[in-house]
Amino acid sequence: MKNNEYLLHLRHTSAHLLAAAVLELWPETKQTIGPAIDTGFYYDFEFAKPITEEDLPKIEAKMAELLNGWFTITHREVSPEEAKQLFSNNQYKHELIDEFASEGQTLTVYTSGSYTDLCRGGHVEHPAKEIGGFKLLSIAGAYWRGDEKNKMLTRIYGTAFPTKNELEKYLAELEEAKKRDHRKIGKELDLFAFSDLVGAGLPLFTPNGTIIRMELQNALFEISRKYSVLPVTIPHLAKIKLYETSGHAQKFAGELFRVISHYDEEFVMKPVNCPHHTQIYASQPRSYRDLPLRYMESTMQYRDEKPGEIGGLTRVRSITCDDGHTFCTVDQIKEEAQNICRIIEEFYTGLGLFGNHWVSLSVRDPQKPDAYIGEPADWERAEMMLQLISDQLGLNAIRQEGEAAIYGPKLDYMFKDSLGKERQLATVQIDFAMPKRFGLTYIDQQGSEQTPVMLHRAILGSYERFLAILIEHFAGAFPLWLHPTQVALIPISENQLEYARAIEQKIRELMPTVRLSIDTSNETLQKKIRNAQMLKTPYMLVIGGKEQQNNTVNVRLRTGESLGELTPEEFAKRIVEKTNQRSLDL
Amino acid sequence: MKNNEYLLHLRHTSAHLLAAAVLELWPETKQTIGPAIDTGFYYDFEFAKPITEEDLPKIEAKMAELLNGWFTITHREVSPEEAKQLFSNNQYKHELIDEFASEGQTLTVYTSGSYTDLCRGGHVEHPAKEIGGFKLLSIAGAYWRGDEKNKMLTRIYGTAFPTKNELEKYLAELEEAKKRDHRKIGKELDLFAFSDLVGAGLPLFTPNGTIIRMELQNALFEISRKYSVLPVTIPHLAKIKLYETSGHAQKFAGELFRVISHYDEEFVMKPVNCPHHTQIYASQPRSYRDLPLRYMESTMQYRDEKPGEIGGLTRVRSITCDDGHTFCTVDQIKEEAQNICRIIEEFYTGLGLFGNHWVSLSVRDPQKPDAYIGEPADWERAEMMLQLISDQLGLNAIRQEGEAAIYGPKLDYMFKDSLGKERQLATVQIDFAMPKRFGLTYIDQQGSEQTPVMLHRAILGSYERFLAILIEHFAGAFPLWLHPTQVALIPISENQLEYARAIEQKIRELMPTVRLSIDTSNETLQKKIRNAQMLKTPYMLVIGGKEQQNNTVNVRLRTGESLGELTPEEFAKRIVEKTNQRSLDL
Repeated sequence: MKNNEYLLHLRHTSAHLLAAAVLELWPETKQTIGPAIDTGFYYDFEFAKPITEEDLPKIEAKMAELLNGWFTITHREVSPEEAKQLFSNNQYKHELIDEFASEGQTLTVYTSGSYTDLCRGGHVEHPAKEIGGFKLLSIAGAYWRGDEKNKMLTRIYGTAFPTKNELEKYLAELEEAKKRDHRKIGKELDLFAFSDLVGAGLPLFTPNGTIIRMELQNALFEISRKYSVLPVTIPHLAKIKLYETSGHAQKFAGELFRVISHYDEEFVMKPVNCPHHTQIYASQPRSYRDLPLRYMESTMQYRDEKPGEIGGLTRVRSITCDDGHTFCTVDQIKEEAQNICRIIEEFYTGLGLFGNHWVSLSVRDPQKPDAYIGEPADWERAEMMLQLISDQLGLNAIRQEGEAAIYGPKLDYMFKDSLGKERQLATVQIDFAMPKRFGLTYIDQQGSEQTPVMLHRAILGSYERFLAILIEHFAGAFPLWLHPTQVALIPISENQLEYARAIEQKIRELMPTVRLSIDTSNETLQKKIRNAQMLKTPYMLVIGGKEQQNNTVNVRLRTGESLGELTPEEFAKRIVEKTNQRSLDL
Repeated sequence: MKNNEYLLHLRHTSAHLLAAAVLELWPETKQTIGPAIDTGFYYDFEFAKPITEEDLPKIEAKMAELLNGWFTITHREVSPEEAKQLFSNNQYKHELIDEFASEGQTLTVYTSGSYTDLCRGGHVEHPAKEIGGFKLLSIAGAYWRGDEKNKMLTRIYGTAFPTKNELEKYLAELEEAKKRDHRKIGKELDLFAFSDLVGAGLPLFTPNGTIIRMELQNALFEISRKYSVLPVTIPHLAKIKLYETSGHAQKFAGELFRVISHYDEEFVMKPVNCPHHTQIYASQPRSYRDLPLRYMESTMQYRDEKPGEIGGLTRVRSITCDDGHTFCTVDQIKEEAQNICRIIEEFYTGLGLFGNHWVSLSVRDPQKPDAYIGEPADWERAEMMLQLISDQLGLNAIRQEGEAAIYGPKLDYMFKDSLGKERQLATVQIDFAMPKRFGLTYIDQQGSEQTPVMLHRAILGSYERFLAILIEHFAGAFPLWLHPTQVALIPISENQLEYARAIEQKIRELMPTVRLSIDTSNETLQKKIRNAQMLKTPYMLVIGGKEQQNNTVNVRLRTGESLGELTPEEFAKRIVEKTNQRSLDL
């Protein structure tokens, strides 16, 4: 594939082609704008009569027909008056023309075949030869210029490539991503739900989804315990004064949920957890002997996201954070940050994601010193410290200016999922600012008062977003230790039902926490296996007359592989071992 | 002790005696009212100059002196005018006189010795002979007639008994309750804290407090798992519409925390959890094959309590509920409710509280049918069902009219703590109303739509209140499985420090979750033991030269008992066993 700019030109030209086809088919349509985007292009239209996705093939056919005649694309300058004449009866183009003219811009129009559009350029030279493959993908509503107060237009999305092969490869990937869409699989596996009565962006986690959340939390707690990280518990609201002190009230003003009391106090739902944790630190006098103090908690925080931007689990209003804060001396920063990096490594190794990642050393934008809280000297020190850790742990962190948090620099881990998508997940952040703002202190060995340093860290980030990523990464085929139903017992007929219950009992004796279902339906064996397969159940134990006679179960993996007949004890031993090890294979 | 009415009379007379003494000592004082209460009596005064608790002995002495002359107490009727003359210059008494007169009441005054008070009566006949012992307890501020808009008066609390013995027994109990006060022990064991920046009634749980919360939750989840109860997870806010549908918006209007969004929706912080759980039920079509569905969750709910009424963990604004809801058919109610009763029995047996309790069958107040949601026929059915369960499980439930929830009748468990105080904790509630309000349905065996029944249940109720009760019940000496620090390793000197760390390692190998501290201070052995004792640490392992030589530890229990020298393996085996069994002895 040629370079990115070329692809954008090719797609922008394809947007013109789309508009040309639409205007041929429905001449009364008003075209507006049609840019190239990361995944292809779109064009926004005001149709006289609404169209549906079923119209897309017709438009594609017309595009293909027109493309044959689009040998070149030419352009010329026009006066505002001429431009307005070219797009008479199109108030959208007129608005743009007035705006460009008032800014003193030269207006240009681009023409290919019989289609002309107001445009600043950025096209391929020979569309007919260069656009090797295109495809229209979907229709959506979009306000003119993105403003809710304006008219809703119809946006047609499409994509285009230099070759048919590239297009087909992309469409196959798209198909795969659709199959893995966390909203689709979340529904199939019954992991979470939304309710109009509860509100948009406020997910409810069903028993299945809660199992995955709890197993992730258990794994985090278990790994963190080795480094003496201690769970704490905080309420979900606080006086706004807490966030005025931390600086979040100002920073997140537009996303705060304010809480109205009947009495004379102003509260907010917590937008972050760190200020609460500082108050646990501050609840006792501290000495250097008490440090480091490491707190962690999986708790919800709240952001008043724009209703239009809410969707699935990736943009929600109640965000369950895997949050952690370490209070330590300057001397202890390095070891503490390193230990957090080790927790990250162990956790992501358990999910098969470690290795396929890179680390960002996110530092200040030196151009915008006012965007950050704290002393410049502390910032320099903190940034150096993280660089040192990166060097010593071989993280090969890439320095990224302007990516720091408001209170300090960070190490951000970017992981690649099975679709090749990059996701920023784990993070370690040094913070010299907040302890000062809250007046936190400890008494050092010499008996004098010092300010501790605070490390913020997240291992998986938000449980909601992480669950969405895991669903799409595993396409629902979660590792055994995470899967809501680990074992499906499938009796061939009613005759084996009693034996199946005895098997369940035996497995439970060895593994009281096993998550197991028995298929008591009247379906055929094939249908029962297909149903368990659909749910990506790791182990299917088929039980027929032969197994009953032999006192065994016939073990089938979701991969299709068969382990043959095992005694219930052999199977239980295997699943206990694989679960406890958080093994990736079955 | 004589009956309760007699005690109230005796205490009311003591309140007069208190007022008499105060007026002798500070004649310019204005007396207001002085009733008997459950724990004794109080009297509210407007003092010309403020008094302190240090003045109480002086008042007591004067009371004793006056009491000698209070042989009888006499009363007579007075006209409003005469009454006003008797209490000239006392606007409080004048206000009462006007009010009583306007209601057409006959006014009476009671006199003993030289003291006369406006009073409706209720006294002992011979105060000097009958008031065997009295004691003033504390001073507090109190608004005249309980109204914040009125003047703040000084309230003096006291108690009185027919005999000195009874008084002394009561004061000893009071002393014990003070020692066990959960706020005091909570501070000593560092279990929770409050922050002015976070707000009143919003407790922060430290690592120690969080351990107890998590162990309680684990126990509940583990016991509930046997009955296929499934954890779910819900957000902490919802549209107010959810609670308008459930009826809670109206019922709890005065205690709702309203949440203000930047967009066009009205939210509240959840005051209860059941409506959210109905929405998980409603997120899928349900058939009789899916029932019963049993959800449980430990999650916070919020009540905007009056700041003046907030205190410790017993009255908070963020209340962590151990909440559970079962959706089932009418036929399944009995078994489901019985299983909940079995979970209650197992959980409370593990805390040594089962047996010392009684059960209330809380039914409607037949006089106030409008105070409840739902159909009268459903109510009758539900009440009968609970009576049947009580009979069959031998709960001997006592029928209590007017104690039902708004949506259905309940079984409430009342447990007695070690101070003999009764606490309402566990509850099982039938609810025919809410599933109808939310339009919940399932398809029955005949293929027609039915409304499920909902059971609400709590095992421990609120974690905050439960923790307060546990602290006071155990006086901080929590059972091994709950205690934040299970083992204190106490090396006699620095020479044993390395050996102590090796012991720690060995115990951790056998019990990775062990909660263990090593005392590395330079204190004497006696001081180190006293410190561990203060924290009610179950096991103290003393390590000296001899133990190091023998490769043992010297095991001392917090009860003072010694287990002598054990090998680390022997000790580890013991603690693993006792912890896993949730044993009450060490």
